Amino acid sequence: MDSKHTPIESLKINGIQLISQIEQLGLIGMDLPSQGRTRIALTGAEKLGRDLVVSWMKELDLDVTIDRVGNILGTLAAKPGCEGNGTIMMGSHIDTATNAGALDGCYGVLSGLAVIRSFNDAGIKPNFNITVAAFTNEEGVRYQPDMMGSLAYSGSISVDTVLKTRGTDGTVFGEELERIGYAGTESVGAIVPKFYLELHIEQGPILESENLDIGVVTDLQGISWQKVTIEGKANHAGTTPIHLRADAGFAAASVVSFLREYTKDNPTTLATVGSLNLKPNVINVIPRYAELTIDIRDPDERRLRNAEQALSMYMKTLESDEGVSIHSEVLARFEPVKFDNFLAEKIKQSAVSRNLSYRLMTSGAGHDAQMISKIAPSAMIFVPSRGGVSHNPAEYTENTQLLQGAEVLLETLCRVMFD
Amino acid sequence: MDSKHTPIESLKINGIQLISQIEQLGLIGMDLPSQGRTRIALTGAEKLGRDLVVSWMKELDLDVTIDRVGNILGTLAAKPGCEGNGTIMMGSHIDTATNAGALDGCYGVLSGLAVIRSFNDAGIKPNFNITVAAFTNEEGVRYQPDMMGSLAYSGSISVDTVLKTRGTDGTVFGEELERIGYAGTESVGAIVPKFYLELHIEQGPILESENLDIGVVTDLQGISWQKVTIEGKANHAGTTPIHLRADAGFAAASVVSFLREYTKDNPTTLATVGSLNLKPNVINVIPRYAELTIDIRDPDERRLRNAEQALSMYMKTLESDEGVSIHSEVLARFEPVKFDNFLAEKIKQSAVSRNLSYRLMTSGAGHDAQMISKIAPSAMIFVPSRGGVSHNPAEYTENTQLLQGAEVLLETLCRVMFD
Repeated sequence: MDSKHTPIESLKINGIQLISQIEQLGLIGMDLPSQGRTRIALTGAEKLGRDLVVSWMKELDLDVTIDRVGNILGTLAAKPGCEGNGTIMMGSHIDTATNAGALDGCYGVLSGLAVIRSFNDAGIKPNFNITVAAFTNEEGVRYQPDMMGSLAYSGSISVDTVLKTRGTDGTVFGEELERIGYAGTESVGAIVPKFYLELHIEQGPILESENLDIGVVTDLQGISWQKVTIEGKANHAGTTPIHLRADAGFAAASVVSFLREYTKDNPTTLATVGSLNLKPNVINVIPRYAELTIDIRDPDERRLRNAEQALSMYMKTLESDEGVSIHSEVLARFEPVKFDNFLAEKIKQSAVSRNLSYRLMTSGAGHDAQMISKIAPSAMIFVPSRGGVSHNPAEYTENTQLLQGAEVLLETLCRVMFD
Repeated sequence: MDSKHTPIESLKINGIQLISQIEQLGLIGMDLPSQGRTRIALTGAEKLGRDLVVSWMKELDLDVTIDRVGNILGTLAAKPGCEGNGTIMMGSHIDTATNAGALDGCYGVLSGLAVIRSFNDAGIKPNFNITVAAFTNEEGVRYQPDMMGSLAYSGSISVDTVLKTRGTDGTVFGEELERIGYAGTESVGAIVPKFYLELHIEQGPILESENLDIGVVTDLQGISWQKVTIEGKANHAGTTPIHLRADAGFAAASVVSFLREYTKDNPTTLATVGSLNLKPNVINVIPRYAELTIDIRDPDERRLRNAEQALSMYMKTLESDEGVSIHSEVLARFEPVKFDNFLAEKIKQSAVSRNLSYRLMTSGAGHDAQMISKIAPSAMIFVPSRGGVSHNPAEYTENTQLLQGAEVLLETLCRVMFD
């Protein structure tokens, strides 16, 4: 980077402020005594998180807008004369999974604010508008599909469909959004960015195990989510011979075991049954009903389809073997994503210029960046996650590493803006 | 039976009244639209069922007492001069499993009332006191162990332990008993019967498949109930390689599959996982915690122990294979029971005298009779269950068969009393 032509040397991330904001936001929705937090999209706790982030955006004098699906956008205007250059967007989300860590999503949003703060602190106006986005319902705990806010932002799902989505608890997305006061009026996707950058914790073990500072994320796994329901026959546990049973619980367990076996034979594929419920769920009654969710991922679309097909065939056999009836419903389906090469190159240059070690890598998790990549060149920056742990109170990245990530985000933005 | 010495020919079961009472009691706790009913012990619905049964006992001029664990006892006094002969008890329970049929338990209690009604209608006083017992919490849905009321009645569990039992919903047995107004003052087990008879639907497919009218129950399977908790590690479903997972949900599914395999190799053993819960139970998080219940039964104590030991060894291996920690807690453990030969003989004679076909058989389910057999000679009479179905709204026995069972109960009681 040719620093003569840029103000990069005047721009500094205020690390203390960034870490403090991560900690403050992390207190909202705290689950005692585990020290995790549960701030599921559009709940009362998440509303408090939104209020806090909006207040911080206003402290930075950003123009804050809320769109019709509740995405929060805070914009620092470009310097006079540069209005026509367009917008560089940084974003992520502030909703959490259940009993989660403080970094997933929040780190990206608050680092975006830290980048803007560095401009304000230095008294420098950018050459582009800079927008920080906090997208609604990335986690998809209560409303599916996940990454809903950015999905709508990219135009891939209609606002109407989002607002009418019914949650796992029977609530309606639009009503809950109204209730927490974040049913905005801005049209969704109004600002189409020139570039989109998302800084995130890896949520996996690779950077830590290779002792690297920065992940330059070049692509992202495809994701297949389905809900499987199994209808069997309730019957007395003490009197029904095994061969006469139609045990929905046993069938569900068989699906779990099948998926584990499949991943052994197909090492690029990941499969998880995170949720499983039985009815009547009573000790001495053979389950008549089981409902389970299935999460399958693979960086390759063809292999992802193979896994889906193998599961589907297995469930057909299981239906006749156990005398149950099995129904499967797609909750979410995203093809693998390739990120923008130009942006990846800028991230790499930024890491190198700061003497940080890096590697190119695939994102295992889904992120808002994969949605925004449909409407703008996008890329992601990862920092290490200790033990690869995420969606867990033990999620942890050292403060030094968090600061390094924010600095790479700032420098990448400057390289895009000023090079 | 030598009818010259007995009033048996004057005694008639009022079949219409019996069926009507079964139907009326079956309406309480109705789950629409399935037509099942849920009348779990010590709930508001079960209180209404108790009130109805007590009102029917009072209509029959019985002396009604409620003991300290809520067992309901209605007694018809012996004729003057016979006070010293003691009591013949008939009993069962009126609590239900979740979304259950109308017959399980209720049929035995209401047939006991029908037997007493036959004495009242004929204006005959019995030679023994006759007590009908409705024992508390036979099903064990909310409070474990099951058959709690008769267990306490037999002195095998202290009243204090029963009253302090905490339910799966966090409630305390004694508090709920108080709340529904059935915390009686009678000491538990005050009436030690000379004989105990329990009429019940089979809840299994054997009598129907062999086209028989009556089951003379000579023994009862041993039952082993345990709750297994599995601690794994919550982690992100998209980023955690399979070999690094400690998936409590997968471990739980493996236990389910193991038990099914075990029963294939050991055909006298039944094993069921009726209840299974995961935490956090979210689509994209590897479960950190699983809780499942295990119900194992075998008519032979040695084989029952073998099954428990095989499971325990399997879980030890699973702990190290999956990196989870597994804890097992005994919820209930009953050895197989042999019923009284003298009573079985009387049941057989009663079936023969009425031209009903019968067989000797083992009870697959647990029943209050197995508890009372510790303090008094006991036996059971079974009638067929269509399709072997129970704990299900489709539980069904023809009215003719229900009436035949009640008549065998009446005749057996007379044979014990008058022969």
